[in-house]
Order: sequence, then C-alpha cells, then structure tokens
Amino acid sequence: MKKSLGARTLLPTAPVWVVGTYDADGKPNVMTASWGGICCSKPPCVGVSLRAATHSHAAIKARGAFTVSVPSEDQVREADYFGIVSGKDTDKFEVSGLTPVRSELVDAPYVSQFPVVLECRLHLTVEIGLHTQFIGEILDVKADQAVLAADGLPDPAKVKPFLYCPEVRAYHGLGGTIGRGFHEGKELKRRS
Amino acid sequence: MKKSLGARTLLPTAPVWVVGTYDADGKPNVMTASWGGICCSKPPCVGVSLRAATHSHAAIKARGAFTVSVPSEDQVREADYFGIVSGKDTDKFEVSGLTPVRSELVDAPYVSQFPVVLECRLHLTVEIGLHTQFIGEILDVKADQAVLAADGLPDPAKVKPFLYCPEVRAYHGLGGTIGRGFHEGKELKRRS
Repeated sequence: MKKSLGARTLLPTAPVWVVGTYDADGKPNVMTASWGGICCSKPPCVGVSLRAATHSHAAIKARGAFTVSVPSEDQVREADYFGIVSGKDTDKFEVSGLTPVRSELVDAPYVSQFPVVLECRLHLTVEIGLHTQFIGEILDVKADQAVLAADGLPDPAKVKPFLYCPEVRAYHGLGGTIGRGFHEGKELKRRS
Repeated sequence: MKKSLGARTLLPTAPVWVVGTYDADGKPNVMTASWGGICCSKPPCVGVSLRAATHSHAAIKARGAFTVSVPSEDQVREADYFGIVSGKDTDKFEVSGLTPVRSELVDAPYVSQFPVVLECRLHLTVEIGLHTQFIGEILDVKADQAVLAADGLPDPAKVKPFLYCPEVRAYHGLGGTIGRGFHEGKELKRRS
C-alpha cells in the first residue's frame, strides 16, 4: 500500500543543466534548469522548461537558440549559483569566473569549463502552464577530450554529471554502473 | 577546445521510467522510457516521449492517461526487460511476475513493486519528430512507506533510482550527496 504524497513534482531525480543564452544586450547569460529531458531521437531534441519571468526565457524567444552545458561534480557551486540569481542584473560569468564561448552553430554561448555541451536551435515552444518548454534541436554535442572514453563517447565516470532531487533539495553524484542497457532483461525476454 | 561529436542524443544521463497504460483490450502494459523529464511546476507535469510504433503510444492516445513508475536498483532486470519487448504480443507483467495496480485517479496501471509512482492525466500531446511527447499532469505521487524519510519525502538513498547513459548503454546508480540545492552557490551570490 503506497502513501499518497499529493500532486507535485516529486520525482527522485532531475538533471542539472545550465542553459546558455545571449540577452537583448548581447550579454552572455546562464541559468540552471532541472525541468528537462531528451524528448526526440530524430531530429535529436532536448526540452528545457523555464518560467516566463526568467531572463533566459525572453532570450530564447528572441534568439531562437540556446545551449545546454552539463557541469561536473566539482562545479556544483557554480551550477547552484547560476540557479539562484537572475541575469537581469548580474553578469554570472564575471562573478563565477567561468568563460562563455560563442557557439559557431547557434546564437548562444556555452560554458567553456563544463565538460559536455549541446548546441540547440529552437524547434518548438510549448506553453504548458507556469513553465514554457523550449524544445531545441541538438545540432551538435561537444565534449572535452579529457572525458572521452576509448570508444569516443563521453565516459560518465569522467564527466561526473550530478543530479538534483526536487523538494529534497539535494545534489547527488552519479554512482557506479549497475547493468547494461538492452541486456539485463534478456533472460526475461527469453521467457516471453 | 572541445571535440565535436555530432547531432545526437548524447547527454550523460537520462532517467529510467516505466510508463504504464491499458491497451485497447484492457490489458495492463508497461514500457521503459528514458526520453523524459519534469516540464512544469503549475500544474505539475511530466513529459515522456514515445515512438508512434509503440503499443503504449496508442494506449495513451486512447485513454488520455499514463503512469510513471520509478524502479529501484534491484529492479534493473525488469526495467530493462520492459524496454526490449513490445506489449503488442507479450504480457510483460505476467512474464516479469510484477503486479499491475489500477490507479484510482487515472485510467492506467502502475507497478506495485516499484517504490515511487506518478499518476498522470494527459495534458498536452506534442508531435516532435520520430517521438511524440506526452505531457501528463501529475495528479498524485505515491511512494512506499519504506522509502520515506522522517520529513515525509522519498529519500533518494532508499528509493535507489538509477539512470541510463544514452549510447554508452550503461545503467548507473545514484551516488551520494554532494551538496544542497539553493545553498552551494550562496557564497558566489554574495559577490554579485
């Protein structure tokens, strides 16, 4: 018998993504968002949801572009900071000492020091309620050489992404591997 | 200098969510989805993206409802299985030995043995490309008493959710806490 906890956004984990944009003055800005996820394979798309009140919301609408920079565990301080102040009156890059890099593919900056970044062209805008979901087509994924495994893919153990636990308000690192995708269920599949 | 890896869905982590539906025959079905995320706070909403070819896609369209059941680390075998066979010709509950529970709030079943579940009423349907995103309003979150902390919230260390690393095809557990949300960045905020 499960206990009812009410209508709320209480999933155990959410990503910690830093959304990069240029504002109306051309100032690079970043904000941290945990309401998001991959939402399509073809075209490859990622969705991030922002409130209309945020500085980044207007920037995505105006420029039709954004980036997603994925911070590493040792960047939790900067990532948290990017989520608690507004770019309206602050230059978050200057305060944090991190470096904006102008994307060559879309009209938005990403965070140089974060290990993995996505460059996205706005594909769809979905007004859901308090949040607007911006669905961006991923034009490129870029990663630091240092986090790549021998197969050329980012190694999660080197990227060290971290997660946010909504309401609990805790950041958690990524644990070790517990299994292989499209493999662990094969024995059950044979019984089908 | 970052290395370009191309236009692909290569974020370091994605959730492992099991989407529950009733099909046209009233048979409970589940499929595992990693393309998804929370997408709005008011109303509380979660988005899951499915290909039109899946059995679950038609079910959500027809019933206007779905659930999200969050598996624990020791259920990786069942969760993986739910993602590699189709409910069109298989009773995945019967094969896995897990139990469907009829939601009292929406026309969909959830997985009894999984520690946290969301009951969702279809709020919006977004055709993105290969995937359709179903945005569900979360009418209730339910959790096993055993995973609740003293404050009444699900304790991530007890839920033991796990993540999927796209393309790398690895499942990773959740690591330990590395910081507090809306706290770690306060020192930087004071400099703003």
